[in-house]
Amino acid sequence: MAKIKIGVLASGRGSNLQAIIDACGKKNSAAEVAVVISDRADSYALIRAKTRGIKAVFIDPASYASRKLHEKAIVKLLQQNKADLVCLAGYMRLLTGFIIGKFKNRILNIHPALLPAFPGAHGQKDALNYGVKVSGCTVHFVVEKMDFGPIIAQVPVLVAENDSVETLAGRILKQEHKLYPKVIELFAKGKLQVKGRRVNIKN
Amino acid sequence: MAKIKIGVLASGRGSNLQAIIDACGKKNSAAEVAVVISDRADSYALIRAKTRGIKAVFIDPASYASRKLHEKAIVKLLQQNKADLVCLAGYMRLLTGFIIGKFKNRILNIHPALLPAFPGAHGQKDALNYGVKVSGCTVHFVVEKMDFGPIIAQVPVLVAENDSVETLAGRILKQEHKLYPKVIELFAKGKLQVKGRRVNIKN
Repeated sequence: MAKIKIGVLASGRGSNLQAIIDACGKKNSAAEVAVVISDRADSYALIRAKTRGIKAVFIDPASYASRKLHEKAIVKLLQQNKADLVCLAGYMRLLTGFIIGKFKNRILNIHPALLPAFPGAHGQKDALNYGVKVSGCTVHFVVEKMDFGPIIAQVPVLVAENDSVETLAGRILKQEHKLYPKVIELFAKGKLQVKGRRVNIKN
Repeated sequence: MAKIKIGVLASGRGSNLQAIIDACGKKNSAAEVAVVISDRADSYALIRAKTRGIKAVFIDPASYASRKLHEKAIVKLLQQNKADLVCLAGYMRLLTGFIIGKFKNRILNIHPALLPAFPGAHGQKDALNYGVKVSGCTVHFVVEKMDFGPIIAQVPVLVAENDSVETLAGRILKQEHKLYPKVIELFAKGKLQVKGRRVNIKN
């Protein structure tokens, strides 16, 4: 069976991108990374991709007159590379309805908290400050409302007595690196079924 | 060491009350249930208490001109029975600042979700409808804002593919029955330390 092609959008160091690339490199993986796109020239994700011979492109938001035009350039590149699936991996821009409409139920994101708790850019810190004893990570489909789309998978992570933001974030990140490739594999094998807000995983 | 005395407030069937009573009956338990108070004459919690020879009192909200007067009657009964700790166990009334002030950081509640997610009276159903893959239960100190007080302990419960509200609620309830007595024991042994929103458990 042909592998599905993934386009990854990343802004930062790209550790989840690395986990995805590594998983796609395994025998029998049903997916491959076709292109990595960043909105930051200095994103380490671009280097990770190039190191593995994957096309890596910086698309500068400052070069476009509007968010939509920036997204149009992204969509064009995704389509040129025949992306079946878009994975956000630390991509720090909110997507508009334009790109979401082009890839309906085909954009995934990973979030470092058990949504709907602690959405936003500081999921680990917010969880710790709130004083929860269980946090975790979430992979979900992307909709226009931030961190709100149908949840595909979650893994709980226990907060330790003396956790700092860094230690908690580190343990959550370990789970992210396992969870994201698993969900991508399920998507690639056509096992995800969205019914309203609930996502069923077919056997 | 003398056992601490617990006053339990319940409105319903009292399964968490039963778990507390059973745990308090074990050798070396540091707590005992001194009185069970219900706002409903037909609460099965009253029968559970009487069956074990524990004082069980229905305090009828309809007999009091205000919430505060109703709570005054409750506080009086708790004090007469020398309650060190108040445990809400399916008590379906919001407490006011009056009773909370009388038992500052000495009122516990258990909630069938991982707070701050899914507060309110339908934690299990709301979680299922939202489509989360991980829910659980939470024991927290009670403050005036509902389901908002400092979190003492949480246990995650995985949502199964074909869960109904009933099956999910049943698995969460099993964890509640283990968690609540554990937290009461920690409280009784003076191991809980509240720092702002965070609760530390002393060794």
